[in-house]
Amino acid sequence: MNPHILKTDLYQLTMTAGYVHAGLADKVVTCEAFARKLPPTRRFMVMAGTEEIRSILLDLRFDDDDIKFLSGIPALKSVMTPEFRDWLANFQFTGDMWAMAEGEIVFPGEPLVRVTAKLPEAQLAETIILSILNHDMSIASKAARVVLAARGRPVLEFGTRRNHHESAVSAARAAYLAGFAGTSNMEASRRFGIPVAGTVAHMWVMVHESETESFSNFARIYDEPTLLIDTYDVLEGARKAADIPKAKAVRIDSGDLRHDSMFVRHILNEHGRSDMRIVASSDLDEYAIDDLLSAGAPIDAFGVGTRLVAPSDPPTLGIVYKVVFDEDESRPLIKRAGSKTTWPGRKQVFLDQRAGDWGHLVAIDGAVTASEDLSPLLDCHIRRGRTVEDAVVDLEVARKYCNSCLTSLAALPISHDLSSLTELRTPSAPVAPHESLLDMFAAAGGRVS
Amino acid sequence: MNPHILKTDLYQLTMTAGYVHAGLADKVVTCEAFARKLPPTRRFMVMAGTEEIRSILLDLRFDDDDIKFLSGIPALKSVMTPEFRDWLANFQFTGDMWAMAEGEIVFPGEPLVRVTAKLPEAQLAETIILSILNHDMSIASKAARVVLAARGRPVLEFGTRRNHHESAVSAARAAYLAGFAGTSNMEASRRFGIPVAGTVAHMWVMVHESETESFSNFARIYDEPTLLIDTYDVLEGARKAADIPKAKAVRIDSGDLRHDSMFVRHILNEHGRSDMRIVASSDLDEYAIDDLLSAGAPIDAFGVGTRLVAPSDPPTLGIVYKVVFDEDESRPLIKRAGSKTTWPGRKQVFLDQRAGDWGHLVAIDGAVTASEDLSPLLDCHIRRGRTVEDAVVDLEVARKYCNSCLTSLAALPISHDLSSLTELRTPSAPVAPHESLLDMFAAAGGRVS
Repeated sequence: MNPHILKTDLYQLTMTAGYVHAGLADKVVTCEAFARKLPPTRRFMVMAGTEEIRSILLDLRFDDDDIKFLSGIPALKSVMTPEFRDWLANFQFTGDMWAMAEGEIVFPGEPLVRVTAKLPEAQLAETIILSILNHDMSIASKAARVVLAARGRPVLEFGTRRNHHESAVSAARAAYLAGFAGTSNMEASRRFGIPVAGTVAHMWVMVHESETESFSNFARIYDEPTLLIDTYDVLEGARKAADIPKAKAVRIDSGDLRHDSMFVRHILNEHGRSDMRIVASSDLDEYAIDDLLSAGAPIDAFGVGTRLVAPSDPPTLGIVYKVVFDEDESRPLIKRAGSKTTWPGRKQVFLDQRAGDWGHLVAIDGAVTASEDLSPLLDCHIRRGRTVEDAVVDLEVARKYCNSCLTSLAALPISHDLSSLTELRTPSAPVAPHESLLDMFAAAGGRVS
Repeated sequence: MNPHILKTDLYQLTMTAGYVHAGLADKVVTCEAFARKLPPTRRFMVMAGTEEIRSILLDLRFDDDDIKFLSGIPALKSVMTPEFRDWLANFQFTGDMWAMAEGEIVFPGEPLVRVTAKLPEAQLAETIILSILNHDMSIASKAARVVLAARGRPVLEFGTRRNHHESAVSAARAAYLAGFAGTSNMEASRRFGIPVAGTVAHMWVMVHESETESFSNFARIYDEPTLLIDTYDVLEGARKAADIPKAKAVRIDSGDLRHDSMFVRHILNEHGRSDMRIVASSDLDEYAIDDLLSAGAPIDAFGVGTRLVAPSDPPTLGIVYKVVFDEDESRPLIKRAGSKTTWPGRKQVFLDQRAGDWGHLVAIDGAVTASEDLSPLLDCHIRRGRTVEDAVVDLEVARKYCNSCLTSLAALPISHDLSSLTELRTPSAPVAPHESLLDMFAAAGGRVS
């Protein structure tokens, strides 16, 4: 059983069978994945998922078990002919896949992933591409804001228990890509080499006869422990922790973090422990962190979980995947449905630095010539069904790239200053459509507003 | 490599090693997973995940690769002694696991899963139990509301593309458990036997020369097709669909669903196609469905995706897992931290029908005698490391049970009528703590409000 081929919607298989039976199986089209609009609480998104998409697309196959399962689905009964079963057995992705680099700052209306392939291949790629982009980009885009709010202080990803156990592993990777310092998730560390972090839970303290005993037992076993001080009384806990010579930090996981961190800092300093750091967790996100630091809370590192992996602003980025070009007929394709109307044509996105600062330009592929100040952002990751090796970068490289992108975002005139984290203001159009795109859109019946 | 043993937080391993090194590895405790409070937009939750928790707990092992990986983690350097490596190699869950049945209607403060085991086993069970409960219960609890809002009309789960590709499979199961009629997710159908549903996407229509050709091509291949009519003009689409004799339904996936469904119904009827059904999708949830049906929209079935798998009200149920009892010392354990203070003691929950209608009673295990009107809800699923076969029920049985629970919820005096879906009113205390629990809570230093 192929691990991913059936992680798709029935209708992808219904349509695939339809294309094969209708003689459309070799027609070549281009599809693009994009966000329709920015959520009101976001000014940018962070690209994530490119590498997993590349890897899964190339592994898609139907083996005997998969085909046997499909043959038992009532809705597919009329199409599971010997010819179609043969077609399924020989299926693989033989097309091209272009995508933004992981860590890129991206905006609505831009193709994030572009697939040019035979109709059934482009169709069977849709659901898995959207699952990966919608999940990973949601986490990475939120994580980047948290990292900016923390103003250089390390942020650790603690969301595993609030997330499905498998998506938690992907979430830890997406957060690290966007600049988190590490994760508590061991499996993410094993798969992706992400640094792991963590200390103890309240249970460690509660099963000991006393808090003091729990601290000294922990310090006997571990070098440089971080002690959890809020099981009973956080200020008492701080005093006891200060008495543990090896302790390098305390963690506060409840209460008024601003108030408590200030008192704890005072207690630690009074006990001659200005060397000890304070780690805070408990329902933190970029707003809470920004508030804490703006109020002078002496917190040295943050643990962020629930509000990263289960964000409510927004719960999803709503990325969609639409056919935009009939390659056989050289015909742009458009879906006309009000606010859901698509921009037709096979597109490229350029980083446009001609005006001094930067913006993005979306243009029909081939209509704009790249230059030093106008560099294309979509790279080819799969060409004719094979990996483009140059395009594959490891997570550390992508993470550094993301960091550099966030730095240049902060240098925009619309300045991503911290106060704007909580503002609803959207950027002053960093995405401009090239006139060729507007013409094609209008010619295909789209309304240009 | 064990598939689940490392889907945990580093600190679970830090504490496990600590217990072993501190001579606490054989101490027996009871831990309980519970929700602290109902989100303001919810009046009940639906239990889900029991069966996966049982299965994963019994499979937890550290194999050689897992132990080798742990040996390379800097934070664990001081504890990976030969003795601890042996301990890891021999680890398995040998305790008891009690849980609510899947599909049970549950409330805050009630133990949902109760583990009595040696300290390290109870500790290593925490993260995976919480991941499963927080994910599956969030989906099932939302799905139950959607099913109630649909007033008997079938609801299909279409959320795969808005969800991580693996959690999407679990989400489809949780939605089906709570009463959805089926899912578009093929892998969920394969793993859990859930009925699959789906028709075509706009891409099928767009790659044909005309909408008419796309409809007739589809009807040539499939019996009783559902045709997607909103790619260009939904009313034109309805007229064309009415001309396809085999068509059994149309789907509308955008626009004003109330307005469009009424006009489409009119067109179908005028064309003598009162036999054709209308399926609606597009950002639906219980509120939208309730509004549509209250306004008389002639919709026969609903597809629900984004707002089911990425709910914002709330994004998480915040279920936690706390140690409550030291079994060796027969000592209740409490964490005192304001609103995060826990109820101590090993507990049982009873369905209490003594007063005619029903409520839940939470009591110290053993303090209340079960009777015909007072039946315990927590069942033993693992006893001394082995499955209790009687407790395992298949998904269809759990789904029927959930349906019967929702029916009795609707019969409460506080009546779960549809208008209350959008109200913030919480039920009139269906959960009452037994006096033994209040005494123990007070004796352990908890404040009874």
